[in-house]
This record gives sequence, C-alpha cells and structure tokens, in this order.
Amino acid sequence: MTAVDVVIMAAGKGTRMKSQRPKVLHRLAGRGLVDHVIDCARQLRARRTILVTGHGADEVEAAVQGSFPEAVFVRQEPQLGTGHAVQQAVPQLPDDGIALVLNGDVPLIRPETLQTLVQACGGERLALLSVELPDPSGYGRIVRQGRRVLAIVEHKDANERQRALREVYTGFMAVPNALLKRWLARLTNDNAQGEYYLTDVVKHAVADNVEVVAISCDDALQVEGVNSPLQLAELERAWQQRNARALMEGGVRLADPARIDVRGTLQCGQDVEIDVNCVFEGKVVIGDGARIGPNCVIANATIGAGALLQAFTHIQGEKAGAEVGERAEIGPFARLRPGARLGTEVHIGNFVEVKNSTLARGAKANHLAYLGDAQVGERVNYGAGSITANYDGANKHRTVIEDDVHVGSNCVLVAPVRIGKGGTVGAGSTITKDTEPGVLSVARGKQASISGWQRPKKAPK
Amino acid sequence: MTAVDVVIMAAGKGTRMKSQRPKVLHRLAGRGLVDHVIDCARQLRARRTILVTGHGADEVEAAVQGSFPEAVFVRQEPQLGTGHAVQQAVPQLPDDGIALVLNGDVPLIRPETLQTLVQACGGERLALLSVELPDPSGYGRIVRQGRRVLAIVEHKDANERQRALREVYTGFMAVPNALLKRWLARLTNDNAQGEYYLTDVVKHAVADNVEVVAISCDDALQVEGVNSPLQLAELERAWQQRNARALMEGGVRLADPARIDVRGTLQCGQDVEIDVNCVFEGKVVIGDGARIGPNCVIANATIGAGALLQAFTHIQGEKAGAEVGERAEIGPFARLRPGARLGTEVHIGNFVEVKNSTLARGAKANHLAYLGDAQVGERVNYGAGSITANYDGANKHRTVIEDDVHVGSNCVLVAPVRIGKGGTVGAGSTITKDTEPGVLSVARGKQASISGWQRPKKAPK
Amino acid sequence: MTAVDVVIMAAGKGTRMKSQRPKVLHRLAGRGLVDHVIDCARQLRARRTILVTGHGADEVEAAVQGSFPEAVFVRQEPQLGTGHAVQQAVPQLPDDGIALVLNGDVPLIRPETLQTLVQACGGERLALLSVELPDPSGYGRIVRQGRRVLAIVEHKDANERQRALREVYTGFMAVPNALLKRWLARLTNDNAQGEYYLTDVVKHAVADNVEVVAISCDDALQVEGVNSPLQLAELERAWQQRNARALMEGGVRLADPARIDVRGTLQCGQDVEIDVNCVFEGKVVIGDGARIGPNCVIANATIGAGALLQAFTHIQGEKAGAEVGERAEIGPFARLRPGARLGTEVHIGNFVEVKNSTLARGAKANHLAYLGDAQVGERVNYGAGSITANYDGANKHRTVIEDDVHVGSNCVLVAPVRIGKGGTVGAGSTITKDTEPGVLSVARGKQASISGWQRPKKAPK
Repeated sequence: MTAVDVVIMAAGKGTRMKSQRPKVLHRLAGRGLVDHVIDCARQLRARRTILVTGHGADEVEAAVQGSFPEAVFVRQEPQLGTGHAVQQAVPQLPDDGIALVLNGDVPLIRPETLQTLVQACGGERLALLSVELPDPSGYGRIVRQGRRVLAIVEHKDANERQRALREVYTGFMAVPNALLKRWLARLTNDNAQGEYYLTDVVKHAVADNVEVVAISCDDALQVEGVNSPLQLAELERAWQQRNARALMEGGVRLADPARIDVRGTLQCGQDVEIDVNCVFEGKVVIGDGARIGPNCVIANATIGAGALLQAFTHIQGEKAGAEVGERAEIGPFARLRPGARLGTEVHIGNFVEVKNSTLARGAKANHLAYLGDAQVGERVNYGAGSITANYDGANKHRTVIEDDVHVGSNCVLVAPVRIGKGGTVGAGSTITKDTEPGVLSVARGKQASISGWQRPKKAPK
Repeated sequence: MTAVDVVIMAAGKGTRMKSQRPKVLHRLAGRGLVDHVIDCARQLRARRTILVTGHGADEVEAAVQGSFPEAVFVRQEPQLGTGHAVQQAVPQLPDDGIALVLNGDVPLIRPETLQTLVQACGGERLALLSVELPDPSGYGRIVRQGRRVLAIVEHKDANERQRALREVYTGFMAVPNALLKRWLARLTNDNAQGEYYLTDVVKHAVADNVEVVAISCDDALQVEGVNSPLQLAELERAWQQRNARALMEGGVRLADPARIDVRGTLQCGQDVEIDVNCVFEGKVVIGDGARIGPNCVIANATIGAGALLQAFTHIQGEKAGAEVGERAEIGPFARLRPGARLGTEVHIGNFVEVKNSTLARGAKANHLAYLGDAQVGERVNYGAGSITANYDGANKHRTVIEDDVHVGSNCVLVAPVRIGKGGTVGAGSTITKDTEPGVLSVARGKQASISGWQRPKKAPK
Repeated sequence: MTAVDVVIMAAGKGTRMKSQRPKVLHRLAGRGLVDHVIDCARQLRARRTILVTGHGADEVEAAVQGSFPEAVFVRQEPQLGTGHAVQQAVPQLPDDGIALVLNGDVPLIRPETLQTLVQACGGERLALLSVELPDPSGYGRIVRQGRRVLAIVEHKDANERQRALREVYTGFMAVPNALLKRWLARLTNDNAQGEYYLTDVVKHAVADNVEVVAISCDDALQVEGVNSPLQLAELERAWQQRNARALMEGGVRLADPARIDVRGTLQCGQDVEIDVNCVFEGKVVIGDGARIGPNCVIANATIGAGALLQAFTHIQGEKAGAEVGERAEIGPFARLRPGARLGTEVHIGNFVEVKNSTLARGAKANHLAYLGDAQVGERVNYGAGSITANYDGANKHRTVIEDDVHVGSNCVLVAPVRIGKGGTVGAGSTITKDTEPGVLSVARGKQASISGWQRPKKAPK
C-alpha cells in the first residue's frame, strides 16, 4: 500500500477567536483542535505527520510535542497563503507516497472519510474532498465535467451558473507527493491578496492532464472549521451529541443526551446509568451497574461495579487517579482528590473530602470530614467533622487508622499518628500520639457549668 | 358499559437495550415502562389487568406486584409471537367484555386514546390503533376501503401502492373477548419466522365479516416503543417536556422547561418558581410562593409556602419524608435527609446536614454542621461546625436542645444528651452530660502559649 | 429632532399567568418585563416616560420608581380598553412631540426598531409596527394599498382575502401627540366588548387624510408578549440565547450556549471560559483568562484575571459585593458571601464559607472552614474544620489573623480575637484570648488512654 504523509495546516491566527491562544490549540471535548486532527493521522497510520506552524508556533509545537512526539514541524513565517504553507513541508516529503493535506482547525474529520480520499487519489490522481452546502456563498465551487473536476472557482470569480453550484471545496486533498512538489513549485502569487493558493494545484493538474476527482463528504460537520467561539461551541455540541449517541448505542442509559459532557474517554460497563448534567474528563472507567447521579463532575477515575455516586459528587483523580470500589456509595457533595482509593462498599458522605488516602472494605466517613494522606482499615467509622491534620505548615505526614477503629465526631488526628486496631477515639479529641489497639483515647477538657453567666446582649447601635 | 380487560404484553427481552434488566422494567420518569401502561389501565377502570410475562418474568412480576397487587400474570414461555402471547391470556379472559391489548414498552399512551379505541370497538368491531408516520418503512400498513380496514400488510409483503401508505398499525387493539378467543384459536405459524402473529386476527375478522376499524392516533409519541437506550432517552425527554408544559400551564414558572426532571409527582401551589436544572423524585409538594434555586435535587418532601431553597439544596426524604416549613431558608449546599422536619422560618445554611431531626420555629444552623436524631427548640442557634454525636458505634441516641439555646462553634453534643432551655454551650466544647437551663457549659482545655516553639521546616527532598 | 414621549401600557392583569404578581413585574433575565421596556425608552432618550398602571398599580409603581425615578404614572381604573389606557396619559403629553406607545409585557423590543418607527412617524404620519406571522389567526391584519395602510382589521371582522394577509399589528405605534389627542377624543366604545380600542385611531387618521404607514419588524421575538408562564419561559430562553451569542461574539468561550443563564450584566475580559450550567446574577465582572467551572452560581462579584473557579462555586456578593483576586483558586463547593474580598492567589477550597472577610495575598483555607468578619494576612494557612466564632448570640465581632499565621485543624477563634504575626494555633484549640506574634498557642485537653473501656453493643430490638 502506498505510504501516506499527512500535512496539517496549523499556522493560522484565528483573529475572530479574539484570543491569545493559537487557534489550533483551542479545546474541543477537552483536547486541542489539532489533537483531534492528529488522532486521525494516527488512525490512518500515516508515515509522517508534518505540522505547518506559524502564529504561536512555539506554543503549538510544545503542545503537540507533548502528546505526539513523532510529529515533524515546519514553520511558515510569514504566512503567504495555503500553497505557501504546504511549500514549507516539501523538504519533509519523500518523493514517493501520497500527501494528505488536513486542517488543524477542522476537528471532526473522520479517518474513514480520509481513507476514501486517499483511495480516490490512488497514487495517481489529485483527489479533493468536497461538500454540498445549502448556502455555498463565499466558498470555492467544484466545477465538474462528469466525474472529472475541471476547476475550483472562487466565489468572487464565479459566473451565475457556477454560483448556483452547491458543491464546494473543503480544504482537504490527497495528492501524490511527486506531483504535489512539481505543482507547488509552479505556484505564483499574482492575485489580489498576493498569496500562494493551494487550490491553484488543480489548474496545474488539469494542465498536466492529471485526473482531478472530488469525493463528496455527506456529513458537513466533518469539514466544518473553527473560526470563532460560536463555531467552536457548535462543534463542541455536535461532538458531544455524537458521543452521547455512541454511549447509548453501547447500552449506557443517559437521562438526557443533551446534558452530558465527555472530555476524554469514558468507558462504561453494562447497565451503567448516568443522570443529567454530568461532566467527565480525562480517562474515566465505570463498572457494570454503576449509577452516576445528577451534576457529578468526574475526572480520571475508576468507578467499581454497582457503585452509586450520588448527586454533586466531584472526583478529580488527576495523574494519581482515584478509585471507587464495588458497591461503594459516594456523595452527595463528596469530593475525591488524587490518590483517593476507596475499597469495596466504602461509604463517603456529604461534605467529605478524601485525598491521597486508602480506605479498606466497608470503611465509612459519612459527614463533614477530611481524610488526607491516610490509610484507613476495614470497617472503620470515621466520625462527623473529624480531620486528619496532615500538614504541619511545612510537610505532609501520614495517618494510619487500623481496622475496626471508631473515630468520634470533631476529632483531629495530628499526623504522623496511628490509631491501633479496634480502638476508639472519643468525640472532640485531638490525638497527637499513637494509641494502643482496643483502647479508648480521649483528649478533651472536662465539662463545667457556669450558672451566673450572662449571654451578651445586642449592642445598641 | 361493557367491561374492559387489559392485556399487557410484557414478555420481550429488549436485546438492543443491552441490559440485564427486563425491558419493561426500564425506567421512564422514575417509573418502570410497564408502570406507565398499568396506570393507563387503572385510569380506564379495567375489570382485569393481565400481564403476559416471559423474559425476566420473576423480576417483572415481583416489580408489578409491589405497585399493583391486583395484576394477573400469565407466562409466555417460550415466546412464539404476539398472537401466542395473547393466547396465554385467554384462560383469564371472561367470555363477555372487551379485550384491550397494550404494550408494556410503549409508555406514553394516554387513557383518552384508549377510551376512543374501546368505543370504536363498541363490543362488536375489531378496533385497531393506527398512526401516520412520515417514514413508515418496516411497519405494517393499514389497508382500507373507506372507513373499513381490509388488512394489515407487513412491509415486506406490501406492493408498491401499499408501501406508499403512511398509516401503520401500532400494536394496540380493542376486540370483543369472544371474537378474540375465536380468532386466536385459528392462528397458525406457517410463516418465515414460525411465529403466531396477533395481526392475523384481522384476516379472520374480515373472513367472519366482522367490521375492522382503525382509529388514527395523531400523536406519534403515544405509540412509540422503547427498544434501545436512545429511544428510552427520547421518550424520557418527551415526557419531561410535556410535564414541564403542564406545570407551566398550572402557573409554575420554570426558568428553563428543557432543564427540569420530574420523576414522580410534583404538586405546586401558586407563584412557585423553579430555577434551572432541578430534579424532583417521588412525591414532592411545594407551597405557594416557594422558590427553588438552581441545581436542587428534591425527593419525597413537602416545601412550605414562601420557603426559599437556594442553589444546590439536596433533599432526600425517602419513606420518612422531609418537611421544610413556611418561609424557611435552606441552602445553598444543604442536605436534608429522611425525617428532617423544619418548622416555620428555620434557616439551614451551607454544608449542613439534617437527618431525623425536628427543628422548631426560627431555629438556625447556618454553617458546616450536622444534626442527627435531634430535637431542636425554637430560636436555637446551632453553631458552625457543631455536631450531634448520635452514633456510639452501635446504637443511635437522641439529642434534645431546648428553646433559646445557643450552641457555640465546633461543639460536639454526645447523645443521649439534653441542653436545658436558654443555655449556652461554649465554642469547642464536647458535651457529654445534660446541662441545666440557663447555664453556660464549657468543656475545653485552657489556652496556653508556648513561645520557644519552632514551626517545622520543609523537609529536604 | 422631535421629542419623543413614551407611553407604556402596564395595566394588564395577566390572568393566564395564574399569579398574584402584576404581569409586567414578572421577571425575564432577572428583571421585570417592564424594566426591559423602560430600558428601551431610556436608550431612546425619551422626553417623558409615562406608565399607564391598573392591576396591581401600587406594586408596579413602587417597583418602577425604585429603578427609574423619572417615570410618570397615570392610572387606568377601571380598564376599558387600550384606547382608554392611552387616554389616561393625555394630560401628561405635551402638544408637540411624538408619542411612542409601548407594551409593558413585550420585553424584547429593541431601541433600533423603535427608532425606525419614530422616524417613520416623522412628526406627521401615524406609524404602526407590524410583523409577518406564519399563522396570523386572531391578530389584527394590516390592510394596505401600496405603502399606505388603509386599516387594521380585526380577525373576526376580516373577510376571506383579508384573513389571508400575514402582516399583523403588534401594538406598537408612533404618532404626533397633537394628532393622537385629537383622535383619542373621538374614540367610542360601541362594540361587542364595550371597550375603547387604540387601533381605532387608524380609522380617524384615514378620515383626516393623515398618512398611515406600517413598518414591518423582521424579528418576531421583539414583538412577542408575555401572557403565560409558557410564553415567559420561551422569551427567557430567547433572551438567554441571544445573550450567549453576544458573549461568544465578544470572545467568551461557552461550553454550551444553551446552558448559561445571565440575569443582569456579565462583563468578560479576553480568554474567559465558562463551563456548562452556570448562572450569573446582578453585576459580574470577569477578568482576562479567568475560567469558570461547571455549575457555578455567581452574583454581584468581580473575578480577577487568571482566577480559577472550580465546579459548584457559589458567590453571592449582594450589595457589599464579593471579590476574587488574580490567579486565585476557588472551589469546588466553595461559598463566598457579601464582603468576601480575596487577594491575589488566595485559595479557598471545598466546603469553605467566607463572609465579610478580607484575605490577603496567598492566604489559604482549603477545607471545611468558616471565615466570617475576619481579616486574614498574607500567606496565612487556615486549617481544615476551623471556624471563626464571630457571633456571640447577640453581636458580631471581628477576628484578625496576621501574616504568616498557621491555624491548625478544627480550631475555633472566638472573636474578638487577634492571632499575632507568624503565630501557630495548635489543632483542636479554642482560642479566646489574643496571642503574641510567633508563639504556638494551644488550648486542648491532654490525651488519655482508657484501656478497660467497652465500646457499646448493638441494642437488642
């Protein structure tokens, strides 16, 4: 099979975005526009992936490098048109193979569509991707004679009959490297804008008697570009809608397909239910029969089978990840932070935060509590309002709470500290020293009663 | 009036649901699909309601039994077609009366529509419910001669002219029991699938010169079935949209009719305002002039007139219910659990949880607090961070806080305990013994100052 | 330029609203319907703005007075029709100038549209605002002869040909004061309803040979009135959709333009990102590069450049306002109340409430805490579960925490109190007296161990 080299146009400024950020780094479904395009190249097993950068080149290259180290960068400075952009890639293009020109700001293109385009090129033709638009004003019309394309005529140069054509060029093309190089070398900029247009290669192909074909994409969203926040939002919604449909086709039950946002990958088992208005980020895996309540925000987490995440559960696993065990119950208003690892049937209730802590099977922290840098044993009951004081103002220390411990309400466990197996900590105690297994530990003042005391009165204003 | 016996087809597997759950038990607006259909039967005052179960029969029957004990179950095992399904119901059908055949997976059907169908049957005709579809491909066409129906022709058997018909059969029919029994007995399975088709009764009716009529349902949603998570979500949205409209017609002001989910019954007084993205479950009653802020989740609760529920209020009344008094102010980020009973003008603020507790008129718990198994008197001020330690690791105990008590911040009241009328509990106190009325109770350590102490330094890495 | 006097019809009851509230006071985008109309008058620099009140006149006048003291009120009691309503304004209309008749329940009208209408009047014509409706049933048709309008014919009086007209009258007109007064004086009520119709002035204009023109509004939403909660919700959504579009055109990146609610003014810098389902109320200003997470509710606040508001941040600045400093990080589940003033790089974490408190650069309160009436210095670390006890049951007192203080977990600072610079408060301490700079202050019980103690057993039921 002929090798494919992908050239991605990523030099544009995107003035209408009104942003400091280079256009192709704007995010759709949680990833840069250009990342979506690169993914396509990856799925096509492209031999080389060349990005033509320009505006914000440093930033774009750094971002792409991070996620796709094999990328090759060429710079277009100054920006003298689309043809000029591809000219920069010429030194990186072997003489054999097919060049596939993509746009870094057209994120919804599908690899299947590009595969068809490459096949249409077949190593000998110039293959253009076209689309039929209800309103083609402003776009370059595809002028055909039967199957063959004769020209791309810009809107302003089109005659009456040509303006009636609804098939327009999308900016995508597949072309043999050798021919592309030959034609790029012939481009001129004797036009109103003084730019080198990539579309001019059509003219040269026709002149060289090379067949030009146009493959019509029947899904306009795939070729839609992002030029403004409005377009970005529209494509975001289109992506989310498609993703929601794919989830449902896989068996996931969504309370409202218009109110789920996935920014990354969401992998679901059987009989997963997701309520309204949830947001998923990074990599999230949800086990069989787990239920996600309304308004949950979940990032980089693994949710065990049969787990229940109540409304307003916030999980932010980041790099360390977060894990919720099978049949665990979390929330409402619970927050799991990086390194929270909850075992089977763990309960985390309202206004409870867990960070970098392991809770073994059946442990519970049901109310207004903080567990940070802690190791919590099986069946531990961690009382309302209790806190692990893991930070001494300079360093973080660990708290160990062994199996079957009962920590009373409003306690502080000052780390480093260990509560021995089966022990009890009396309510309101501040524990600074390790405790023996099985004992009751108390650290609080004696209750006293002051009967003459007068409660303050409202101050006169 | 002729008695009506309802036969509900509830044996299907629903392969495309990709679920362990029997299809008719999937939930729409918080209730099983079949429950919606049974409700219809109930509203029609059906003499008998017979469910034909098959896939997951035990589970389906147990679920239906729970909510509708009068239901009669017949099993279809194996499943040999729709005609075979109704044949199972024959022993339960008296010889008089009209059989009304419904589908357990078509949840939005309205009793008025079925009433019309029953009337069209009139004890002597075979009455079919039909619908006109923009795209009728795949459905059985209704072939008419004037008012009379001649046949239902399956899509694959239809000729050109018949395929152009847009009126199709919905699966609903009303037919005199006696005739139905006669025709069911004549069904054969000499067709490609080897199944007994209910639609074949049309043929027998025509043969017996019994008039067949079709009533066209002008609301396609009523006859739409659920076969996939996608269809389930679509009907869920349709149900919610209709319900939102009905609420607004009753005077409720919804900030966004596309962002309210009601799963159960929501009964509202005059001048009720509901902000965006709220979810209501079970039975919720909201009094005149109450305002529900954005993102509230409210289940099984009664909200008093003039009450204000701020954003992110979470009420989960379950069986015990939860009550919010008149002009009470709750939230944001408040959680009321079963048995929370808040009197007039009670204030519950952020990060406060109330469970199985009664708060009398004017009591306040405004910040980060837990009240469980407590009885709180009038005008009590319950301080920030204070906790009722109601659980000793084995049993739950009650806390009584009498009228006009002021509980300071970060206190623990270790139950069983009583704080006497007008008393004050000093901040940071853990109270384990009852206190006398009017006294100040304190239980904390003496403040000491250690001046030579060095705060820890960042550990070298 | 000719002076314009605005007459706003605000006397209607709005029976279909099913509300105690006068119709024009129902809220759209957080403001009364009539406020939107008044804003239009203001932007047109009307000489006088006269409101004709009736149903709920006291309430309407009080509400309008508050926000627009220059308003002139005339009462229409009883309500005898639209002509009768404008008749009440006659004593307030000078003889010169143009009267512009608006409707208090048609909130989306744009000043540009009204400007065009006034120009069409030109001090000599009767100018009507019309609109073309797909279904004009029920509305008064504009009958034209070329540019000139001959009549407004009510639906019930219209002949076949007239009913086919789709151009209808909207209720808006501009007319020279002198002519209006003359024609109003001639109105009669000899019709079925016994009412005085404003539309009858057309007849008199024609009789007087004054040219009548109709300006067609090509945006039907601008002339749509609110008569029911359903219509109110529809216009609310239309307003929000337009506002979302305007924000995006200004460069704001919205995750979902269908899920943002702005009720007031939202002013954004460059590169502001707003996630799904946020609500903004009152006056909110967001600086460059700030990011607002999902489900935030923000009222009357200023958010500094580069700040990050995580999911479920709730800010309620009210009159005192709330400020979030540059690069500050807030939430998730944080609540800022009136007078919260957070400096640069302040961190406020989950389940933390801040009210009427100033936090200097780099201060942190990351977990389950309350800061009320406090002044917090630079780099202060305020521990998990710590509380400022600012309320003694009668009065509020201030807490001062000087620079570089470290407050441990679950502390209470009983105000008035001052923690000296660089000091440390040990975990679990209740501090009632000022502390010296640099010292460690502790107030807690000594830890004791009770080894014979038996944890309670489950009580037999």
